Amino acid sequence: MNNFADRLIHQIQRKKSCIIVGLDPRVELIPRSENRRQKTDAQSIAQTLLRFNKKIIDLVADEVVGVKPQSAFYEKYGYRGVKAWWETLAYAKEKGLITIADVKRGDVPSTAEAYAEAYLGKSERDVIDAITVNPFLGGDSLQPFIKLAQVNGKGLFVLVKTSNLGSKDFQDKTLAEGQRFYEYLAGCVRAWGRDLIGKRGYSSVGAVVGATFPEEAKRLRELMPEQFFLVPGYGAQGGKAADVSVCFKPDGLGALITAARSIIHAYQDPTDKNWEEKVISATRQMNKDVTRKHEK
Amino acid sequence: MNNFADRLIHQIQRKKSCIIVGLDPRVELIPRSENRRQKTDAQSIAQTLLRFNKKIIDLVADEVVGVKPQSAFYEKYGYRGVKAWWETLAYAKEKGLITIADVKRGDVPSTAEAYAEAYLGKSERDVIDAITVNPFLGGDSLQPFIKLAQVNGKGLFVLVKTSNLGSKDFQDKTLAEGQRFYEYLAGCVRAWGRDLIGKRGYSSVGAVVGATFPEEAKRLRELMPEQFFLVPGYGAQGGKAADVSVCFKPDGLGALITAARSIIHAYQDPTDKNWEEKVISATRQMNKDVTRKHEK
Repeated sequence: MNNFADRLIHQIQRKKSCIIVGLDPRVELIPRSENRRQKTDAQSIAQTLLRFNKKIIDLVADEVVGVKPQSAFYEKYGYRGVKAWWETLAYAKEKGLITIADVKRGDVPSTAEAYAEAYLGKSERDVIDAITVNPFLGGDSLQPFIKLAQVNGKGLFVLVKTSNLGSKDFQDKTLAEGQRFYEYLAGCVRAWGRDLIGKRGYSSVGAVVGATFPEEAKRLRELMPEQFFLVPGYGAQGGKAADVSVCFKPDGLGALITAARSIIHAYQDPTDKNWEEKVISATRQMNKDVTRKHEK
Repeated sequence: MNNFADRLIHQIQRKKSCIIVGLDPRVELIPRSENRRQKTDAQSIAQTLLRFNKKIIDLVADEVVGVKPQSAFYEKYGYRGVKAWWETLAYAKEKGLITIADVKRGDVPSTAEAYAEAYLGKSERDVIDAITVNPFLGGDSLQPFIKLAQVNGKGLFVLVKTSNLGSKDFQDKTLAEGQRFYEYLAGCVRAWGRDLIGKRGYSSVGAVVGATFPEEAKRLRELMPEQFFLVPGYGAQGGKAADVSVCFKPDGLGALITAARSIIHAYQDPTDKNWEEKVISATRQMNKDVTRKHEK
């Protein structure tokens, strides 16, 4: 199966889950039992993050379809953090999970080519299934990603309407022709994804659509019938189960709901001895809330 | 001097140069004499890139105001590449150059905070003077960068009108109120930079404005009087000396002209034994073409 969307649907149905766990660990929230020495140098923190991520992956693997480590939380610790990020992706891949690298890259074509090779290439580090990309630089800036996704059976999620309040500033702007910018973008994403539609009718070029703006998400669902939505903003950012409902298609597919803090740090208190159970039960609860009701 | 714009102007006047060299090396173009073993594993390539960068820095240091290593060309080689990228920045800093990390990051506020700490923070890796950022996610997504730039005396260059042809797709869109999107953005950048204006009247929040669209650049110069322009697209991408002229203000300041391939690989043929001289003379020629005429 060399189409990302087809592989994704296979995993969603096998796992009976549409949850993607954001692996964005904050070192100060890692359980004391997993971080006894409390060292503060980049090397020690990077190792702590990796160890914690592996534990989280083991805990949630049965309940989720994949993971999404956000690059920023690792880049913060220099190349040592980046190493831990790659090792996290490798471990998740080994455990049979879909891996989404949340990098939001976007650059002029010659540079985008280098980014595409970095994250969608067939190097020794071939542990990524899909990445997030930023469309601000225009169509030609995304072509290297689209091309490599097609050749290597990888996926893309293009930012269309993000979950933050400030997404109103530019993404909601009304264009001279009367459309909102995010609506216009949706048409572009659909066109970019046309050559990557799999056997199940979904494209490997998806869209990032925040759970925090259900009205806009509903409209975007109409405009992008072949797109999988990667939906951030559930849980800690305020998105509710009802809000994400509009992101699903009548076939019960089409949406991947992400949550980070509300899952990986569900226990809240780092001294909590039952932290593992709390991570598991938060994941199960979320799966019940957002996946089960859309099951067909 | 804790304002980036003030430090930048000091360096421009001391060096009599407004050139920023893009350190985006392509391993296949590195002179044979600098890459004898031609190994292809990530570790060897990363070392070759770093060695080459150091040589380029030594060659051009007197003629340029700073360097701008593009992250993509290093991320391509995993964490080993990222390590070489940081070491390149550290070496350039050691040589007294202004360092601009071309990362074009942009994310929701909580994630942007992590990115800001990664690149504008006061960690052991405090070797970056300024970074490029992508504004697509809106004002709140840039606040963590602006705040840290102010506190730590760092600079930002916000993408406004990029040098690629596809920049027309979204950046040139006409908004309902009649402005182009890049014009609207220019107003935002000016507002974001207001609290970071230094003694010389320039803000530490600058803008990326491509040399390939001189008409648009001219308009943007009017709209952003306090902004330094970081101008890509000169040389290999087609921008000419006349095209970049409009990016300068009457005081001869306000623009940093970047070139990568046309400087660092000026010799074109990797077997060229006189490659070092060609790099030096390409840099001198560029300085003559773009800086000297604006000197006051």
